[in-house]
Amino acid sequence: MTHPESLHCDGKRLLDRLDRLGAVGRLEDGSCCRLAFTDADRQGRDLVVSWMQELGLEVRVDQVGNLFGLRRGREDLAPVMTGSHIDTVATGGQYDGSLGVLAGLEAVQVLNERGVVTRRPLAVAVFSNEEGVRFQPDMTGSLVYAGGMPVAQALALIGIDQSRFGAELERIGYAGPMAPGAIVPHAFVELHIEQGPILDQEGGALGAVADLQGISWQEVVLRGSANHAGTTPMRLRRDAAYGAARLICFVHDLAQELGGAQVGTVGSIRLQPNLINVIPREAVVTVDLRNTDEGLLRGAEARLESFLRELADQTGLELATRRLARFEPVRFDPGTVRVIEQAAAALGQPIRRMTSGAGQDAQMLARICPSAMIFVPSIGGISHNPQERTEPRHLQLGADVLLRTLLALSGDD
Amino acid sequence: MTHPESLHCDGKRLLDRLDRLGAVGRLEDGSCCRLAFTDADRQGRDLVVSWMQELGLEVRVDQVGNLFGLRRGREDLAPVMTGSHIDTVATGGQYDGSLGVLAGLEAVQVLNERGVVTRRPLAVAVFSNEEGVRFQPDMTGSLVYAGGMPVAQALALIGIDQSRFGAELERIGYAGPMAPGAIVPHAFVELHIEQGPILDQEGGALGAVADLQGISWQEVVLRGSANHAGTTPMRLRRDAAYGAARLICFVHDLAQELGGAQVGTVGSIRLQPNLINVIPREAVVTVDLRNTDEGLLRGAEARLESFLRELADQTGLELATRRLARFEPVRFDPGTVRVIEQAAAALGQPIRRMTSGAGQDAQMLARICPSAMIFVPSIGGISHNPQERTEPRHLQLGADVLLRTLLALSGDD
Repeated sequence: MTHPESLHCDGKRLLDRLDRLGAVGRLEDGSCCRLAFTDADRQGRDLVVSWMQELGLEVRVDQVGNLFGLRRGREDLAPVMTGSHIDTVATGGQYDGSLGVLAGLEAVQVLNERGVVTRRPLAVAVFSNEEGVRFQPDMTGSLVYAGGMPVAQALALIGIDQSRFGAELERIGYAGPMAPGAIVPHAFVELHIEQGPILDQEGGALGAVADLQGISWQEVVLRGSANHAGTTPMRLRRDAAYGAARLICFVHDLAQELGGAQVGTVGSIRLQPNLINVIPREAVVTVDLRNTDEGLLRGAEARLESFLRELADQTGLELATRRLARFEPVRFDPGTVRVIEQAAAALGQPIRRMTSGAGQDAQMLARICPSAMIFVPSIGGISHNPQERTEPRHLQLGADVLLRTLLALSGDD
Repeated sequence: MTHPESLHCDGKRLLDRLDRLGAVGRLEDGSCCRLAFTDADRQGRDLVVSWMQELGLEVRVDQVGNLFGLRRGREDLAPVMTGSHIDTVATGGQYDGSLGVLAGLEAVQVLNERGVVTRRPLAVAVFSNEEGVRFQPDMTGSLVYAGGMPVAQALALIGIDQSRFGAELERIGYAGPMAPGAIVPHAFVELHIEQGPILDQEGGALGAVADLQGISWQEVVLRGSANHAGTTPMRLRRDAAYGAARLICFVHDLAQELGGAQVGTVGSIRLQPNLINVIPREAVVTVDLRNTDEGLLRGAEARLESFLRELADQTGLELATRRLARFEPVRFDPGTVRVIEQAAAALGQPIRRMTSGAGQDAQMLARICPSAMIFVPSIGGISHNPQERTEPRHLQLGADVLLRTLLALSGDD
């Protein structure tokens, strides 16, 4: 076969496809709005399917709308799979998700043009409703594909607009016949933008993603008594904002004290009545704790829980917590991570091992096959935003590392 | 004359007038909405004027809409004045302000019925725009009356709805000919609900208000950087919510440490973007500091200022402060306070000396004549709220103490 060293992706063609897909559902401010199973999502899918067909891929669609373009291999083995998602948040960028799908198509096109048939089949996947904006939970398509949720349960999900997952999928014509999981991958590798500042700040190396943070999201409601800020002595107050402030400081100090991969954030506070001269009667605060180690994450949650008990005792506030989300950390397959690192090394491209701070389809695929991810830098760490951008040379380099990784996983290096 | 001991107000008649005035501008949720110089304020004024006329009072209106009902005395001396305001906040209760005006009318009615002519004339005042919701500053009418703001400046004030104070006053027909301050009071005493929890929690005694807190309102804007809550290491964060939390704890702890009359409140926080998984880039926080002693209040402000400098150094946040309001503490006339206490004692009614935590028209009148206030308990300390309520027996007792105080100040005890 053609020597892998001579195979390079066409960065311009990749960026052209990103621009063309990004134009579908684009809003006036430049952001992409392709919520899952909307007309814009359908148009995006139609465009990707047309490209798959032009490239000679066999298109298959499963019962939750996951979409696959299959390319035959020299041997009838489990395919090497790549891909990501093409749904976006309400005001997203054009790289998040789409890059992983379109770089997979670019890799296929290079192989087609050079007449390379890999040992294993290749599959380029588009997973449904990764962002989870319209239907919760997020990553629904890959979750079902990996056996984490029954098909019927997914089809019955009700969206924020009261629509039904299954009905909307039928409506856009992407309710396929294939059972999710029917194409069992030999391995899965996903190329994605980092959506964080680390690679950009550290000089633009690529990332070999070795693990993915566990996420613990809770809402804490603190209830006290609203009273006049002038006439209520300090000793008679039950001030919900003061309780919230103590909680915010605790979360910050806990993450710093635990160190390592532990992060903790209070991003949202809502006070009632939120007036300058009224002691707040209620504060609703979100707590976001993340760690790459499940034991450490549980430890942080336990520390938070005991702090909240003490806080209630000390302040007389009533506290209630509600779990909003909980994902265990994911450790990607070390062998697959090494393959990615070797692919980058062969291209002379610096790459660093790192952790994904965001949820990804690859974390679901990791349940059923060896999986890992490649990150390219996000300029300024900006994502979920029309300003989301990655340097064209990083797009090209990411696609080249993906192509070499696919070849290696297929046994063609 | 009739012996003061035999004179008692009619609590039922007082409550009936409170209910009837409270019905003017009442919203569906039961709250009162009579913002200054609106149609509802005009209707409320018309009703009070009709009662003044029924009671034989001479009605006079000054150039900023302050309204006076005058009752002649046996001697042509400076009158003893009482009163308050009848404008409300957007969702207020029916006692705040109105009680002081209508208890004054009730006292007049008792004197009329018993044929008592006091030595000094009596005046029942209704001051304009006390709440300051529509036009800032609050207490505009009494401020102008006491010479604290020129008439022309008041008439030129622009409201939150872009209306002009003078034009709206003309529109509702209450731009009078009298120069503010033309009726020089011998003394001023104002009956008001406490708007705080102290009297209610301490068993329902009345209050003789000896002083009024100084108020320092500031807005603090903390600016950091918005970043992904998962992918941004703790050391790379500039978290505006964490800075705000440190500030809230400081204000609370400072007031507790200073003790005495010092109170401190953060009642309002606004975060940007206020999302669970984004480190907040901006927090806007209000700080309300109050003390009855100007030196101590300045000391608290200085401590806050140096804390904010340290906080900026420690967190890398940019901090900016803006003064929203500043009033020096007011000390009411000790002689007038003693007259109130003696009036209560003569009625066998417990009364305690206390501080007003809210701004009051009496603080303006204190600039031009001996002044003090009588407080009745607010159930649960609730005010500026449709749930605002005072026990009917406390309304009656408050009016009785007011009546005896007016008689004493007039030289009729």
